[in-house]
Amino acid sequence: MATEAQKESQKDWAGDAQNASTDGEFKRDTNYIGDRIVASVTGEEPQPAGGDGNSGSTGDALHWTVQPNRYRLIAARACPWAHRAVIVRRLLGLEDVISLGLAGPTHDKRSWTFDLDPGGVDPVLQIPRLQDAYFKRFPDYPRGITVPALVEEESGKVVTNDFNSIVRDFQTEWTEYQRAGAPNLLPPAEQREEMEEINDFIFRKFNNGVYRAGFSASQDAYEQAYEDVFEVLDWLEERLENRRFIMGEHITETDIRAYATLIRFDAVYHGHFKTNRNKISEMPNVYGYLRELFQTPGFGDTTDFKEIKQHYYIVHREVNPTQIVPAGPELSGLAQPHGRDHLPGAPFAEGTTLPGKLPDAERLKNPTQFQRELFGLD
Amino acid sequence: MATEAQKESQKDWAGDAQNASTDGEFKRDTNYIGDRIVASVTGEEPQPAGGDGNSGSTGDALHWTVQPNRYRLIAARACPWAHRAVIVRRLLGLEDVISLGLAGPTHDKRSWTFDLDPGGVDPVLQIPRLQDAYFKRFPDYPRGITVPALVEEESGKVVTNDFNSIVRDFQTEWTEYQRAGAPNLLPPAEQREEMEEINDFIFRKFNNGVYRAGFSASQDAYEQAYEDVFEVLDWLEERLENRRFIMGEHITETDIRAYATLIRFDAVYHGHFKTNRNKISEMPNVYGYLRELFQTPGFGDTTDFKEIKQHYYIVHREVNPTQIVPAGPELSGLAQPHGRDHLPGAPFAEGTTLPGKLPDAERLKNPTQFQRELFGLD
Repeated sequence: MATEAQKESQKDWAGDAQNASTDGEFKRDTNYIGDRIVASVTGEEPQPAGGDGNSGSTGDALHWTVQPNRYRLIAARACPWAHRAVIVRRLLGLEDVISLGLAGPTHDKRSWTFDLDPGGVDPVLQIPRLQDAYFKRFPDYPRGITVPALVEEESGKVVTNDFNSIVRDFQTEWTEYQRAGAPNLLPPAEQREEMEEINDFIFRKFNNGVYRAGFSASQDAYEQAYEDVFEVLDWLEERLENRRFIMGEHITETDIRAYATLIRFDAVYHGHFKTNRNKISEMPNVYGYLRELFQTPGFGDTTDFKEIKQHYYIVHREVNPTQIVPAGPELSGLAQPHGRDHLPGAPFAEGTTLPGKLPDAERLKNPTQFQRELFGLD
Repeated sequence: MATEAQKESQKDWAGDAQNASTDGEFKRDTNYIGDRIVASVTGEEPQPAGGDGNSGSTGDALHWTVQPNRYRLIAARACPWAHRAVIVRRLLGLEDVISLGLAGPTHDKRSWTFDLDPGGVDPVLQIPRLQDAYFKRFPDYPRGITVPALVEEESGKVVTNDFNSIVRDFQTEWTEYQRAGAPNLLPPAEQREEMEEINDFIFRKFNNGVYRAGFSASQDAYEQAYEDVFEVLDWLEERLENRRFIMGEHITETDIRAYATLIRFDAVYHGHFKTNRNKISEMPNVYGYLRELFQTPGFGDTTDFKEIKQHYYIVHREVNPTQIVPAGPELSGLAQPHGRDHLPGAPFAEGTTLPGKLPDAERLKNPTQFQRELFGLD
């Protein structure tokens, strides 16, 4: 039903909508820059300032060395994939070793942009658009300009945009630089395989399922995605009846992956992507669980509802051509008591401490009143 | 933000969207054909078969005589303005004297159409499009082809499309033909003035407010309409705390006017028109009140959620260009106990009886399972 012009703009879009296909079903391009930043590089490593890293090919994954103050995480408050990396960086206390650049919520069809920064350029990379960092490394980079991305500060070249490995490597490769008392976000070894299965299930049917629902070009594809989304939510509602968190008594990476979608659900996906059987606030266990996560430092204090809503409703013109941003929903219930204390467990295991105050430069631009009160943001 | 083609199609649309204006604010054309059908005509009356009724001008309101089997009510299950007339006709038992024709949910930009009828023509009027009845009387009819409309069966000419007077005249002019035990839908005389004020308040800020929100072309106009909508809902929530119905102990015309919008709210307006502070199901008094109305014959058994959703999501391409119809929300809570029995009153005053079984020809085409059970539709 999209006009040719809409299809064209869709095809060219940075981020979310770039891969809408013509057969009715939304297929996410999961072909990311596969480079990783690791604690101990075996074999050749790209030179600092990127000597070998600019081969122009994205096919050969390179390993870069963990080093404080060498890399910059580029995120956007709006984006759920970037949100995961922002949460994990904060929980692990990597703020002092990996800097953070934040693109604004309403990228154009070419790129996420640094329109929130003074002069519209990232203060460290000195570029107006994230695509500049992609093109610096791969002049003909053919795919979407996505966040999160890790960029080498000195060379200004993108290193990786693979959100899965970014989040995992923060946990397992940057251990030397994590804060004292940082949580372990992986479950016990015997649960790892189950966790990977659950991560995959949640990714396909929920994290990406909401996009498949919203970007469907056919009623059938939409309805299949809608069913997938609520299959996961019904599964969660049951699983969280007796479990404090998805993998058990403590927060793991899986909860962070779920959170980034759950916290956007009532605010955006329910209406904008038409996943509207019910709101999260109508599912007692999932909503209590979401409230507990939201109230944990690292989660609710990195969630900017204004930017989240602006992003989806303004950028996705093929879904919302008026670009009007809904004034609702009322979300202050997220600050109400979570009622999960009767379940065994706690956000983090004993010996773990909560992350400290947010660095001033990283505070939310648009906290709600209930976030101000909850996190003492004034 | 609409393309020129979208603006053009909007301008020409039958019904809802015809009056979207370019200054950001949606203004409904409330200039209807002002003719009325009355019990006792003073002065000249249009001849049966419409002799004088086709002057080509809509400026001079004519009076037509109440007569059984002379007029046909053309409605659409989807349309809230038509829904009022359908409910009142059924509550008053006028089915045997005023026939009912039903246009399908997805009119094109020219007219509501009889696409649900065999051969795509209204079985009585023998026309495929409602506009044929308008043009038969006014060959250059310049405004939207709207439902409800009363059409003289013999001449095939539209008599009136003024939904306010249609509903009022069913009550006050057709008394001779109302069923035994029909309810009085007007409050006691001393409450009439208050009722008219409330009707006006609800019309401007709620019945039409949801459209103003949904068809706003500017963020400011949208936000003003959103505030209006929730001003009415908050007012209702408070008013219904101690009152069984809006005017007091029994259902009046005001409740019918509110119902037609309330029952579409969670199903459509909340998402499609972005009036999403909360759902009706989150407002205990309004939701209990809505459940009681829904469960009363005449209300829930004339409500076709499938046609309602199809109408808004498929017709309003300038709001929903994908034309995908949401699978949600879950609405079966409408069949749960309404919990309003502790309040003094009952749907109708003593001596009033409920309307009987729906005529077979008028049964919903798409009842939900909970409607089948509630109204014994199988």
